[in-house]
Amino acid sequence: MNSDEKLRLLRAQMQAEGVDGYVVTGADPHHSEYTAARWETRRWITGFTGSAGIAAVTRSAAALWVDPRYHLQAGKELAGTSWTLFPVSLPGENLVISWLAEQLEPGDTLGCNAWETSAASWEIYREGLNPRGIRTRLTGDLLDLVWQGRPPLPREPVTEVPAAYTGCTRTEKLDRVRSRMDEAGADWFILSSLDDIAWLLNLRGNDVPYNRLFLAYLFAGRERMVLAAGVKGAVKELLLHEEIEVVPYEDAPGRLEQLLSEEPGTVLFDERTTSMGIAGRIGEKNPVIKAADMTASWKAKKNSAELQGMQEAHLQDGAAMTAFLCWLEHSWKEGTWDEWSLGQKLFEFRREREGFIHESFSPIFGFRENGAVVHYSAKQGHAALIDRRGLMIIDSGGQYLGGTTDITRTVLFGDAKPEEIRDYTLVLKGHIKLASQLFPEGTRGMQLDTLARMFLWDAGKQYGHGTGHGVGHMLCVHEGPVSISPKLVDVPVEAGMVCSDEPGIYYEGKYGIRIENLLYAEGAGDWGFGPFLRWQPLTLCPYERRLIDPSLLSGEEKACIDSYHRRVYEALADHITKEEARWLKEKTRPVQ
Amino acid sequence: MNSDEKLRLLRAQMQAEGVDGYVVTGADPHHSEYTAARWETRRWITGFTGSAGIAAVTRSAAALWVDPRYHLQAGKELAGTSWTLFPVSLPGENLVISWLAEQLEPGDTLGCNAWETSAASWEIYREGLNPRGIRTRLTGDLLDLVWQGRPPLPREPVTEVPAAYTGCTRTEKLDRVRSRMDEAGADWFILSSLDDIAWLLNLRGNDVPYNRLFLAYLFAGRERMVLAAGVKGAVKELLLHEEIEVVPYEDAPGRLEQLLSEEPGTVLFDERTTSMGIAGRIGEKNPVIKAADMTASWKAKKNSAELQGMQEAHLQDGAAMTAFLCWLEHSWKEGTWDEWSLGQKLFEFRREREGFIHESFSPIFGFRENGAVVHYSAKQGHAALIDRRGLMIIDSGGQYLGGTTDITRTVLFGDAKPEEIRDYTLVLKGHIKLASQLFPEGTRGMQLDTLARMFLWDAGKQYGHGTGHGVGHMLCVHEGPVSISPKLVDVPVEAGMVCSDEPGIYYEGKYGIRIENLLYAEGAGDWGFGPFLRWQPLTLCPYERRLIDPSLLSGEEKACIDSYHRRVYEALADHITKEEARWLKEKTRPVQ
Repeated sequence: MNSDEKLRLLRAQMQAEGVDGYVVTGADPHHSEYTAARWETRRWITGFTGSAGIAAVTRSAAALWVDPRYHLQAGKELAGTSWTLFPVSLPGENLVISWLAEQLEPGDTLGCNAWETSAASWEIYREGLNPRGIRTRLTGDLLDLVWQGRPPLPREPVTEVPAAYTGCTRTEKLDRVRSRMDEAGADWFILSSLDDIAWLLNLRGNDVPYNRLFLAYLFAGRERMVLAAGVKGAVKELLLHEEIEVVPYEDAPGRLEQLLSEEPGTVLFDERTTSMGIAGRIGEKNPVIKAADMTASWKAKKNSAELQGMQEAHLQDGAAMTAFLCWLEHSWKEGTWDEWSLGQKLFEFRREREGFIHESFSPIFGFRENGAVVHYSAKQGHAALIDRRGLMIIDSGGQYLGGTTDITRTVLFGDAKPEEIRDYTLVLKGHIKLASQLFPEGTRGMQLDTLARMFLWDAGKQYGHGTGHGVGHMLCVHEGPVSISPKLVDVPVEAGMVCSDEPGIYYEGKYGIRIENLLYAEGAGDWGFGPFLRWQPLTLCPYERRLIDPSLLSGEEKACIDSYHRRVYEALADHITKEEARWLKEKTRPVQ
Repeated sequence: MNSDEKLRLLRAQMQAEGVDGYVVTGADPHHSEYTAARWETRRWITGFTGSAGIAAVTRSAAALWVDPRYHLQAGKELAGTSWTLFPVSLPGENLVISWLAEQLEPGDTLGCNAWETSAASWEIYREGLNPRGIRTRLTGDLLDLVWQGRPPLPREPVTEVPAAYTGCTRTEKLDRVRSRMDEAGADWFILSSLDDIAWLLNLRGNDVPYNRLFLAYLFAGRERMVLAAGVKGAVKELLLHEEIEVVPYEDAPGRLEQLLSEEPGTVLFDERTTSMGIAGRIGEKNPVIKAADMTASWKAKKNSAELQGMQEAHLQDGAAMTAFLCWLEHSWKEGTWDEWSLGQKLFEFRREREGFIHESFSPIFGFRENGAVVHYSAKQGHAALIDRRGLMIIDSGGQYLGGTTDITRTVLFGDAKPEEIRDYTLVLKGHIKLASQLFPEGTRGMQLDTLARMFLWDAGKQYGHGTGHGVGHMLCVHEGPVSISPKLVDVPVEAGMVCSDEPGIYYEGKYGIRIENLLYAEGAGDWGFGPFLRWQPLTLCPYERRLIDPSLLSGEEKACIDSYHRRVYEALADHITKEEARWLKEKTRPVQ
């Protein structure tokens, strides 16, 4: 079906619904960062394959807003269609509203899919359009009758996290929820966020690729606990035994309405993660309290069992990465491998490791100029052949029994150019500066972000992405609420938080460099000025020493690198082959 | 009159007004950081002499909220009174509201002085108390009839800034205001902020000590421009000639009401700087737009004439400081000077300099343990005698014809202790790191703040104040909107902004160290990653080289210090005596 045909069918549905405009955000009903294929509505209707954007359709026009990462790509993908592309700095409801206000007449109606529209967004559309005489109405998913072959709801098995890796029982966590509800004066708490539900219930699934999530809603009352999810068998029995009612996922809105009519009361929920498909069922009689999901900040601070699992996962992943890099150095020949087949090879190394489940995201292998495309993804048959010297960014990770990994190494094929060595060293200096900085409790990510950038800044260079994101425990590789970036996120780094440390540098059309380790924060001491924190590395893998210029490093920086390399060798030596260990010994010898 | 007597008289006034509670914020009608003595109401009623806090009085209770800087001081000053002290982290309306909600009964009325209450605060009181059945009413200043000997309204002369130092005429600036009003769809713009009015009209006064402000309101219409201020004589003639109507300061509310009844329309104002005494006159019929004063961001970016004036002022101030430090080193003997008399001495050195008008703030001379009290102020007869070795913080500044200065040097009497040298060097490393960092446009102060702290953090140390504040041109020594501090202020540093760079370290009961220069930002170039900015120093004065440990400095850091010292010597040598120049030559020789 071509683009115009899809638009024609959607417009027919819009007419049948009596709406003159319709927004397609591509959000899933849980407002997840990554969604199951079923909810890739924006991709299906527009043909744009990027991970972020907003689309809107009226009777006569269709528009897509995308951020700078996707200006080029969206331009190519939308060429020749009747979609109007708006390359903007940040796609948001406000831009869609301005456009709709021009396209629609007073008296017209905008339809918003209740499941794609968060309670917060719904307010914004109403406040932006209603005063101009444009009506707003919640609808079902209008693509349902249009999209032939739409993927069904995923229903993968849900499993329990082994007790050794949770450090906290479901009951203990749910008691904590109830205490917080008491403090807030809430009778009900609605949780829609999938990683929060998985963490809270010590359960994992596979409904969203890479992310170990399962589709679910949780309704916590003062006495009752209701999980709407496709949980079956022994796990379901266990939940019932713990007095957690289980209803089918699709029954969530109806069951919520029922619960609130039986026991009306004050409802606590996060308006950014709760869709109107759920929030719309709360009813006028029940007062609401809107607040960020309490579980988000709890799950960010990993306890010692969770950190232990993360360390085990990183030991396995470090062994896989090291074995891969050793193999690569010995086996690589010009013209034999491309980006995609190397990705498969790394996957094979990971698959052999104990506890490996699957990759934690779609890996990035970017050779030469492809390394400069921050969200590059090589496709089978469309991947660059490694046919000459150059740098390659390898950003990948795994889901293991005990934890989640995410690592980037920049690999050198052939001989290095001086500018590549200089840039790699500058990036590495920022990477180790952030990792080795002692900092007081209360420090937020945007204060630390500068540490990873300052050496590049000194050279008039800059990178356009954040330095670090939170990482889930056996969960999403991107996890809030902490962010080490220039974004104004008022969340301090706390002991137990796991963050990535991944500065980079990118030259369009030439090459990219990025170095990423995961770190966790721990208490460091108090020297009379309040408690301080420090980072500990989780990732275990050597840097590319042929790209390090020791003359640009201070004695302290060399000591940092040597100490990290010593740690890598000591941790991995017994978990890799003798040949690999010999190679690693050489790669981790002191920087001169 | 003692504290209880004052409270008795205020309560009688409250009864006469029919209010059961009354808030005393100590704000002036312009919500200035520094106020004329007339508006030191919080100080008069409570006896607490600190610069920040909120007081509230009911029929039977009286309470004061102060921040950590003042916990100790307020405790001493309120001892033995019937005031209840709440030492909190941040005094705010929310704390006052919680307390009032406990103290007052439904049906009671809280009175807020319309002139002390900003439009923003008034909303907060109403939203916090009315739902609990507590009424809120705007009143006049109830202390007026109670406070015997209350200082009158200041009425100092208003003078014009020489054209050479403005770089932009009044007419050009007012045209810019009108363009912005057009963009915003505003028919009227109300400006209450005193430094914004002074900057916008190229006028200066002396109504608030140190700050070169004059009491005024400005009402800008599409056609009319009305200044309510005590402007007289030639300056008034000039304004009238430029079609700026001048009415007495006291007539402001009446004139505003009149203007809006003659020409109703949309009114633009900043709810944080506009008191209800003014905002309350806008009337229901006129739509309002609340937005930060447009002038605040304009005046922060100094043009080349303003920067030229700042540089001239810093040349004079640097010469005065250098002469003072040279004199101090030669003339100081144990037991002959105290903190206060040294302050007088520095004032004498400044007074001799060309263009000096008066000090830009009450100087801080803190010897030994007094240096650890961040807001210490020595009083005549109660100042520490310099009777033995030790460090002294000297934080002072001047108002000159062309600009405003603010400088801190830490001075050593006698021999240095190793820990003092180590701490001074760590503070200096942060100070020069911030000053020498190249950074991309768009970088905000909180991202740069870390640069000044990271060396102290590495040693487990921290300071409890911001690193840098904006500085006015021939105006307030503290100026918004930029702030180099951990505060989440979403204002990027832009070319032309002047900021202080003043890290420090403080050991309670022992000593304090602070080093402060003023810097201005300028465009540095674009190396393919967007435009970058760099800092240039304004302050010209040597560091205390006896407190520098060269072994803790990198080669780059030594080069930074040497280059700054060379600049200081070259700029000042011709503006000081031969003896002072010889001394300065020695003080600015390369760090070994």
